Amino acid sequence: MLGIGKTGWIEKEKPVCGPIDAICRPIAVAPCTSDVHTVWEGALGEKSNMILGHESVGEIVEVGMLVKDFKPGDRVIVPAITPDWNSVEAQGGYSMHSGGMLGGWKFSNIKDGVFGEFFHVNDADGNLALLPDSLDPAAAVMLSDMVPTGLHGSELARMEYGDTVCVIGIGPVGLMGVAGAVLRGASHIYAVGSRPDCARIAKEYGATDIINYKNGDIVKQIMDKTNGNGVDRVILAGGGCDTLEQSVKMLKPGGYIGNINYFGDDDYLKIPRVEWGVGMGHKTIAGGLMPGGRLRMEKLASLLVTGRIDTSKLLTHRFHGFDKIEEALMLMKDKPADLIKPVVTIDW
Amino acid sequence: MLGIGKTGWIEKEKPVCGPIDAICRPIAVAPCTSDVHTVWEGALGEKSNMILGHESVGEIVEVGMLVKDFKPGDRVIVPAITPDWNSVEAQGGYSMHSGGMLGGWKFSNIKDGVFGEFFHVNDADGNLALLPDSLDPAAAVMLSDMVPTGLHGSELARMEYGDTVCVIGIGPVGLMGVAGAVLRGASHIYAVGSRPDCARIAKEYGATDIINYKNGDIVKQIMDKTNGNGVDRVILAGGGCDTLEQSVKMLKPGGYIGNINYFGDDDYLKIPRVEWGVGMGHKTIAGGLMPGGRLRMEKLASLLVTGRIDTSKLLTHRFHGFDKIEEALMLMKDKPADLIKPVVTIDW
Amino acid sequence: MLGIGKTGWIEKEKPVCGPIDAICRPIAVAPCTSDVHTVWEGALGEKSNMILGHESVGEIVEVGMLVKDFKPGDRVIVPAITPDWNSVEAQGGYSMHSGGMLGGWKFSNIKDGVFGEFFHVNDADGNLALLPDSLDPAAAVMLSDMVPTGLHGSELARMEYGDTVCVIGIGPVGLMGVAGAVLRGASHIYAVGSRPDCARIAKEYGATDIINYKNGDIVKQIMDKTNGNGVDRVILAGGGCDTLEQSVKMLKPGGYIGNINYFGDDDYLKIPRVEWGVGMGHKTIAGGLMPGGRLRMEKLASLLVTGRIDTSKLLTHRFHGFDKIEEALMLMKDKPADLIKPVVTIDW
Amino acid sequence: MLGIGKTGWIEKEKPVCGPIDAICRPIAVAPCTSDVHTVWEGALGEKSNMILGHESVGEIVEVGMLVKDFKPGDRVIVPAITPDWNSVEAQGGYSMHSGGMLGGWKFSNIKDGVFGEFFHVNDADGNLALLPDSLDPAAAVMLSDMVPTGLHGSELARMEYGDTVCVIGIGPVGLMGVAGAVLRGASHIYAVGSRPDCARIAKEYGATDIINYKNGDIVKQIMDKTNGNGVDRVILAGGGCDTLEQSVKMLKPGGYIGNINYFGDDDYLKIPRVEWGVGMGHKTIAGGLMPGGRLRMEKLASLLVTGRIDTSKLLTHRFHGFDKIEEALMLMKDKPADLIKPVVTIDW
Repeated sequence: MLGIGKTGWIEKEKPVCGPIDAICRPIAVAPCTSDVHTVWEGALGEKSNMILGHESVGEIVEVGMLVKDFKPGDRVIVPAITPDWNSVEAQGGYSMHSGGMLGGWKFSNIKDGVFGEFFHVNDADGNLALLPDSLDPAAAVMLSDMVPTGLHGSELARMEYGDTVCVIGIGPVGLMGVAGAVLRGASHIYAVGSRPDCARIAKEYGATDIINYKNGDIVKQIMDKTNGNGVDRVILAGGGCDTLEQSVKMLKPGGYIGNINYFGDDDYLKIPRVEWGVGMGHKTIAGGLMPGGRLRMEKLASLLVTGRIDTSKLLTHRFHGFDKIEEALMLMKDKPADLIKPVVTIDW
Repeated sequence: MLGIGKTGWIEKEKPVCGPIDAICRPIAVAPCTSDVHTVWEGALGEKSNMILGHESVGEIVEVGMLVKDFKPGDRVIVPAITPDWNSVEAQGGYSMHSGGMLGGWKFSNIKDGVFGEFFHVNDADGNLALLPDSLDPAAAVMLSDMVPTGLHGSELARMEYGDTVCVIGIGPVGLMGVAGAVLRGASHIYAVGSRPDCARIAKEYGATDIINYKNGDIVKQIMDKTNGNGVDRVILAGGGCDTLEQSVKMLKPGGYIGNINYFGDDDYLKIPRVEWGVGMGHKTIAGGLMPGGRLRMEKLASLLVTGRIDTSKLLTHRFHGFDKIEEALMLMKDKPADLIKPVVTIDW
Repeated sequence: MLGIGKTGWIEKEKPVCGPIDAICRPIAVAPCTSDVHTVWEGALGEKSNMILGHESVGEIVEVGMLVKDFKPGDRVIVPAITPDWNSVEAQGGYSMHSGGMLGGWKFSNIKDGVFGEFFHVNDADGNLALLPDSLDPAAAVMLSDMVPTGLHGSELARMEYGDTVCVIGIGPVGLMGVAGAVLRGASHIYAVGSRPDCARIAKEYGATDIINYKNGDIVKQIMDKTNGNGVDRVILAGGGCDTLEQSVKMLKPGGYIGNINYFGDDDYLKIPRVEWGVGMGHKTIAGGLMPGGRLRMEKLASLLVTGRIDTSKLLTHRFHGFDKIEEALMLMKDKPADLIKPVVTIDW
Repeated sequence: MLGIGKTGWIEKEKPVCGPIDAICRPIAVAPCTSDVHTVWEGALGEKSNMILGHESVGEIVEVGMLVKDFKPGDRVIVPAITPDWNSVEAQGGYSMHSGGMLGGWKFSNIKDGVFGEFFHVNDADGNLALLPDSLDPAAAVMLSDMVPTGLHGSELARMEYGDTVCVIGIGPVGLMGVAGAVLRGASHIYAVGSRPDCARIAKEYGATDIINYKNGDIVKQIMDKTNGNGVDRVILAGGGCDTLEQSVKMLKPGGYIGNINYFGDDDYLKIPRVEWGVGMGHKTIAGGLMPGGRLRMEKLASLLVTGRIDTSKLLTHRFHGFDKIEEALMLMKDKPADLIKPVVTIDW
């Protein structure tokens, strides 16, 4: 990223490794819609000459003197969120907000990202996880952001056995939201989206019904399918600010909304007063950035190793070679109909 | 209530007692701001010839044949919320929404209230609690609504040891919100209000600081007092829809807002997008009607019996005699400066 | 059950239907190991002339006058646990202990069970669930006990995404424990058992490894497979009192043990002091009877309807006809090597 | 500590400060019963020439180059438990077990303690908290261990509004268990102990009843006081292994036992099978080491600053001067009748 709306290659010094840090080379990376927001919507404000990218699997080339569990040559999963684990926020259970709201998000936000020859990882022992031998690096790169973000939806929505859920949005995060809901015991999963390829894969991941917003008000469609009862849970994984209003309307009293979507427009999200029970309907609205760090990566990697989640379905476009990153990023920007997620693998 | 804006006495048949129900006489009652909303703001829509009131301590005069634990002559605490305990909502932990959102609220809503010579209680075994001998009925009538509603604020806000909290509103519910926060381990309690009598009593209940909105933006005042960090929790117990926006702004990431206030205006409550972390700030917004029923009344009564809460501070105006109910209600409507809560005790 | 150790057919009056109750005929029933405990081990003490059985799908033949949601002719799932929903225990979230510890267990315990021409269901609206048309009654009868008991293991053990778990016991409850762990996000599932048929089906339900106690100490086997780390969770679904000690030894600090097993021997279960962190290791020991009632049945039925769980794998022996119940019960007592669960379907 | 059973002064090198660490001088310290266990019972095995002590308030004399929030001269609260915050255990919410069970306990366990001229604190930013100006260092030293351990009892026991609780043990930890129960909403608090001074102070902290085990079986006494119902929660803060059996017997189904006691005898703790509901009574047994670290100290310090807890009642014996530490330790060993907690303040 050269500036808002402008991308290109830049030369930078190799990053410096602190005593508890690591320097890695990327061996698999993926561009994210957030990268698109950052560059072409200026979501993070003006940034110049910042290296993009926060989804990667890498190989360690250097570690600080206090790093205990990793060494050069190790192949590692690198989470998009790399908290400062001794911060008070992390101690309170919200490591993703270490040092301030969203402060655990460092790559391509407050420092250079992973689309470089080398990148810097703060607190290597706390934030890296060994790549299990059985995992394809291209599939594993989905562990950086898509899997933890998608699965966090069910955590925020406090999914329980047999819950009915509406997942709004079936891009890669929404698809992982569907897969994650199955792994927390959801029964009926109403997935909202319109792209046929996404709808097909949503069903493979466990969606029981596809709700196409082009067929009319999604609240009405959900109410029709649930005999007017609405759903127990909503996972918000796409769409604009209006989706919150829809979510409240389709939710049963006692239900939870788990938002994992970035809202980029409007000054306000709106809660419809009456359908929110004039304040007293026990329709809880939660939303949060994915948890990152080492333990999370290890746990989610174990779901891939044991076959509970198959991320390869997401990888519609595969590239090979460092210089293909730009092409992959442009693909993410242009979103062709058959795209879910591009990935670039790199040999050194 | 004769109709919107009109009150008066009406003659009605004594209610009929079903097999699991009870009929009571009131021995202490209190009007609630909700009664004022119902009559003068039409909060529940048009209602004609409905007996008002949902806060009472009573004496049982009749029980259904299947009632096991109560008998005529028993003096009982009657919660404002009397759920159908075998409903699916109650089974799911949200008894206050039994049969539909807010459906556990029956008195002076979907049936006659407690401001009559006799009133009907559904599911006596499930919804009544014996009045402990050591409790003054006037103090105990605060258990119907003020105590459970106020204390629910800290439950919704998931208070933990040492949390800092802002309690917005220091009417009787907000004061119980303050008392309830102390009993869940809050440290600094910033209570927002302007009436001197309420401020004084808020301090007696444990508020450490009084924030007067007449002295400027309450968000700024809170930020100044917390070195710019904001608070861990917000309990919303008064004010209009704007208080939600303020709450989000003063809340730390990872914080909870617990709303126990009735919102009566506007079509929408608004969440400020940026301060809500563009959807990802882990600032959870919860709001809910008080839990009612027998167990809750027994548990909260035990807090009065053991002196953990002293509700007598709320009772600024005491009346005696059934015919004083109207005067008490008008007092609630007019809200003189020294009023917190009127109560009427009745002999039969 | 005629008495301890004696079974046979008895004639009884048709049960009487109270105002909120229902009378049903069984259309599918299954004997349970608990029935075997009751008769041949005297687990409930001396009982004479009590009809056995608590797993059934039935057809309603009569409902009380206050029953709202069911009518004669309805086909219903009948949970083994049928709480009194207005009890203080149910209000506190422990409906299975309504009226006293384990008090929600009524069938073949404190009243006649379901192995009769007619059986009585207390609180029909609160305890029955309509049988979805798409479900085979024989498969659905597993919803009475096997599914809710098995799945409760992961609830007691507070399963989270990517947890490793040891499930001790792979009889029908343990197998549902395995299936339930998958549906709460477990990754590696170490299933302890020795019978080849059970081991095969455990793998189909999602076990990643089978631990055969005949091959040596299971704690050592688990430690070897986890690089000495132990597991995050243990679900106890079989075995004697010694399994608790083993569970504590194989559990990581911060872990949970969820017991769903009936312990029939010894005066005490034992916690090894040192491995329990001299009292401070945060290894939590939980154990509890399955939650019953209508909502639970509806939610779990939705897991069968949507294909999240396939109970038909459990049904190794199918019988047809009311008079085959005794044969099925004897099979459960004798436990042939290829038995998991017998079921009897009945036409009327 | 020179060896098991032997204490004395030793000369050691000043500890070395790593890049994220701090070196402190003690300005207030307190000996703990754990120190007595360590020396005279050999609870940690053979240790030679180890400096004792883990309760202190100190002054920083040196910080590592990566320490951001503290500087020499700062007066700080030093928790007994100082975790490695980037460990997987801490990331999973169990920082006290960082690096292995009980691994967050470093002082006077795996390194020298605080009864020296200088002591070393790992991860200063993560583990120290500034001493608020308004706090007396002698009162604040109770924040190192007594307050967090005592209050953790109610967390482990998941205290809720109006719960009845039995606190077994009314030494300093048990007294903080009583105070902590009040701050989580307990109503009736039955405190078990026999020493008159402790009983008096327990009442000041909020105990409603004192149960003296010298007056007979405490289970029977509790049952008599609760009409045979038992209690909702038990906090175990003293006594031998038999107290677990008593706790299970006096607990209601659905209840929690929170153990904060060190168990030093016997190979096993025993759970009575029948009273534990043959494994299915939902009587959960939890036990754990106190949470330490900076945030915890800041939160608990705020409870002292706002007057929610008054630790000065614990300080029955005050000493002044570094050389009085041995006298204070011997006092802790000999436990005179009027002792609750000795504290030593030190000028430099």
